Amino acid sequence: MESTVLPCVAGLRLVDHHCHGVVDGDLGREEFESLLTEADAPAPGTTLFDSLAGLAVRRWCAPLLGLPAHASPGDYLARRAELGAETVNGMFLRAAGLADLCVDTGFAAGRLLSPARMGEVAGARAHEIVRLEQVAEEVAAEGPSAGEFADAVRARLAERAAHAAGVKSIAAYRAGLALPPRRPTGAEVRAAAGRWLSSAGARPRLADMTLHAYLAWCGVDLGLPVQFHVGYGDADVDLHRCDPLLLTGWLRATAAVGTPVVLLHNYPYHRGAAYLAQVFPHVYLDAGLATHNAGHRAAAVIAETLELAPFGKFLFSSDGFGLPELHYLGALWFRRGLDAFLRSGLDAGEWTYDDAARIAHLTGAGNARRVYRLDQG
Amino acid sequence: MESTVLPCVAGLRLVDHHCHGVVDGDLGREEFESLLTEADAPAPGTTLFDSLAGLAVRRWCAPLLGLPAHASPGDYLARRAELGAETVNGMFLRAAGLADLCVDTGFAAGRLLSPARMGEVAGARAHEIVRLEQVAEEVAAEGPSAGEFADAVRARLAERAAHAAGVKSIAAYRAGLALPPRRPTGAEVRAAAGRWLSSAGARPRLADMTLHAYLAWCGVDLGLPVQFHVGYGDADVDLHRCDPLLLTGWLRATAAVGTPVVLLHNYPYHRGAAYLAQVFPHVYLDAGLATHNAGHRAAAVIAETLELAPFGKFLFSSDGFGLPELHYLGALWFRRGLDAFLRSGLDAGEWTYDDAARIAHLTGAGNARRVYRLDQG
Amino acid sequence: MESTVLPCVAGLRLVDHHCHGVVDGDLGREEFESLLTEADAPAPGTTLFDSLAGLAVRRWCAPLLGLPAHASPGDYLARRAELGAETVNGMFLRAAGLADLCVDTGFAAGRLLSPARMGEVAGARAHEIVRLEQVAEEVAAEGPSAGEFADAVRARLAERAAHAAGVKSIAAYRAGLALPPRRPTGAEVRAAAGRWLSSAGARPRLADMTLHAYLAWCGVDLGLPVQFHVGYGDADVDLHRCDPLLLTGWLRATAAVGTPVVLLHNYPYHRGAAYLAQVFPHVYLDAGLATHNAGHRAAAVIAETLELAPFGKFLFSSDGFGLPELHYLGALWFRRGLDAFLRSGLDAGEWTYDDAARIAHLTGAGNARRVYRLDQG
Repeated sequence: MESTVLPCVAGLRLVDHHCHGVVDGDLGREEFESLLTEADAPAPGTTLFDSLAGLAVRRWCAPLLGLPAHASPGDYLARRAELGAETVNGMFLRAAGLADLCVDTGFAAGRLLSPARMGEVAGARAHEIVRLEQVAEEVAAEGPSAGEFADAVRARLAERAAHAAGVKSIAAYRAGLALPPRRPTGAEVRAAAGRWLSSAGARPRLADMTLHAYLAWCGVDLGLPVQFHVGYGDADVDLHRCDPLLLTGWLRATAAVGTPVVLLHNYPYHRGAAYLAQVFPHVYLDAGLATHNAGHRAAAVIAETLELAPFGKFLFSSDGFGLPELHYLGALWFRRGLDAFLRSGLDAGEWTYDDAARIAHLTGAGNARRVYRLDQG
Repeated sequence: MESTVLPCVAGLRLVDHHCHGVVDGDLGREEFESLLTEADAPAPGTTLFDSLAGLAVRRWCAPLLGLPAHASPGDYLARRAELGAETVNGMFLRAAGLADLCVDTGFAAGRLLSPARMGEVAGARAHEIVRLEQVAEEVAAEGPSAGEFADAVRARLAERAAHAAGVKSIAAYRAGLALPPRRPTGAEVRAAAGRWLSSAGARPRLADMTLHAYLAWCGVDLGLPVQFHVGYGDADVDLHRCDPLLLTGWLRATAAVGTPVVLLHNYPYHRGAAYLAQVFPHVYLDAGLATHNAGHRAAAVIAETLELAPFGKFLFSSDGFGLPELHYLGALWFRRGLDAFLRSGLDAGEWTYDDAARIAHLTGAGNARRVYRLDQG
Repeated sequence: MESTVLPCVAGLRLVDHHCHGVVDGDLGREEFESLLTEADAPAPGTTLFDSLAGLAVRRWCAPLLGLPAHASPGDYLARRAELGAETVNGMFLRAAGLADLCVDTGFAAGRLLSPARMGEVAGARAHEIVRLEQVAEEVAAEGPSAGEFADAVRARLAERAAHAAGVKSIAAYRAGLALPPRRPTGAEVRAAAGRWLSSAGARPRLADMTLHAYLAWCGVDLGLPVQFHVGYGDADVDLHRCDPLLLTGWLRATAAVGTPVVLLHNYPYHRGAAYLAQVFPHVYLDAGLATHNAGHRAAAVIAETLELAPFGKFLFSSDGFGLPELHYLGALWFRRGLDAFLRSGLDAGEWTYDDAARIAHLTGAGNARRVYRLDQG
């Protein structure tokens, strides 16, 4: 593949500013298929290999395992099992061509490689992204009073974030993105904490808009980039509540602080997210998750995103989770999609190769280095 | 046309899983134009032939009537009148290349060919789709008490559906798609029926969310695929209330039952519908109506839909209504749009011809046969 | 550029049915960049020249100033300063190739050339578009009673509109587009006026849904086309409240009157706007603002818009504001985008050159002449 894309794209050592760990163990077909897209399982009589994501695995991943391109799902999984998870993880993560990766440790951490291991396996520097709600739930499980909760969370976050590159909010999954357009008061947070803590069981699950907002403000106050899950996700998402435009009021309220806010995924609301990234100086975005799911169509999604998003605001991420194929394909489709975008303008005389190279560098690595301050620390 | 698309697409005998009858009689220009798009009439000083739908009629339908491609609207309508409705209906319906068609009988049935006649004229097997609200309104007109209504509707539906392939909800047109995320209780249905029946006149028109939800659950309980009008329609639709994502809670509530739910049309929310079809095993979708309205742009709509929709979940429909041209063009643009999608991947080496043939078979016929169990009955 | 587009497009004298004046004075880099997109300022470490809009300035505007294509931002701005605002304004406005322009005078009028001056500089006929809210705020500042307000506004509008081509509502910016689906009563208007007038200071700012609706109805009653800001704008917009579909009820209520309603910009809701333009005979739309911001991608936006919009309903506008480059680029990208759309069909044999020429004439000038009655009076 690399030989067919522009040298300025092929040569990029990418910064994957948002991904998860890969599964540390072998996977049967059912489990592999459940990790391939956002579906838990295929419909009766169908397979999730019959999707753009599945076709891309057969086309692009099979050759890395020494199989012909377009190998059947059965052959692919047999070869994968033969090589073993450790080998396969290394092959794909190294083939992604990463300089750095930022790993969200907030979900299913026990089954997945840690950031440090991800870095070793990928041959890249690894950084942690701390999930705000996971920290809040950890604190809640320790039984604080409603009055203690806010400070305890803030302190724990500061501790956890001391060596992290950023934090992440999953308000979208739990309550939607209509965060209030101002900082919640101490009394509001205390009342919300009281309600939640009194009803939460042994494994508290946060789903309260005031507390999601409080956590996001804690992130803003820390000064570390605050990532938001936006748009596309699994069946737990109420996707229409995850339109990034619902966050407009909150973005207006945090603009003056200047802490970067990074909108993740965004599909199918990527044009709205790009608008936000254009008009709010502190807002950034990516097209992760959609790129490896849309495979051959990733170029279309990236091109739509770049209609309004300034090139200094668009970042690469794979959002790979579980399968190292997704980290690899995320990088591959980002490169190919960006290449298609850049070529379309080069072929039409719209910009120069130097412009293309600068855009490739910014979106593939430079923006993430600047926003996450990866070279200072 | 057929000669220019891939053989695996050109040779498909399609299953049109959602269409309506055609008008059984000759049409003047005004009436023809009123059936061509979702507009009732053109603006002063304009014609609806000046649209992608109108250009496609002149390009693709004129030659079937023995006229040169691109014949003028006047010449086209004169030739159509000369041949007569019966001849024209037969020409276009046969040219659509259908194996089966599923005909919604819930609207304007008196003016349109019945499913049986549609099948004869098209040279295809025909199946009925029973419109839920039409059955409820029929029952309501018979004057049941509020307490009798629910059972009477359920019984009538079972009777009507005994020889049908599926049922259809038009909640979108009447109340929007924000169906409650759980089954309404008997008391809720009784109360809603009481309100409706006491206010309904001689020709009751259902527009009550609880009753739409009750009807949809009746469909789920019958085990027949439940079609939902989603998105694009005529000026009676409040389109923003027809976003398929509003149905997410209801889909979550019905997932465990497993009865297929088929989202019709979906434009311009087809990417959201495709997300639902990916993450919910019981959800399917099509791009009907949009394909013949968007004509030359149908390929773009289909490609966007297939970004997330697994190939085992996407079905062909024309949503043709009134004009047999629309059944023909629906089939033509589905074939051409799918062909463009498949070729884009073949040309780039993303998949094999065997993959393309399988995708063509699934989306053009196989998925519908499986979901509607067309070969078991 | 003109030499590479179809003659029927290149030869068009466009009617720019919605734009603003240009700044009458020289601009530093900061001010230039703040007018280039909808962002007030770039993020730290970035430049808004790194956007499709910025690349287009370097590619297409630099040669008009005698620089090589792709000149650097620094060279471009230096040359611009050397020539001076008056020269530059004239170069770009004349190069836009306009027959007529309709100038919105409701914002920042003091800094911008008047409609008459815009017409002189552009070598085109100029017409005024009166901003409804600006008139209401002007009346409010004169201290009417709540009871006098409605009639005073209506009278002032009639006066202001006597020599205008149309009026414009910015309800989208202030309260969103969910206008009530019926005419507000006199009592409702009086009550709303009372609330507003009693709280407004020396420079009243209207943001009341009842009053926005009243103003829009005044426009309808005047019989002049009523423009609505829809969708994309600066950071003051709550974009999700500017979905044109929220206006559906109001459009249904005004359909019988027949006064044209023109939906401006629409991005990223242009497909929904096109649906409205198809099903409501009195609704028209454009793709202004998005075209010059999306630059090289304008063709994609125009093609999506024309999926459903009849060709008799789509109008050209630049929405140029402040920088004459935007008027020029708006015209350039409209021509290039329309050309790409028309060619795609010509190349595929979907329509004839005569069809293409008619579509170019309608969308580039004819529709606007008919809707705004530019040749009567």
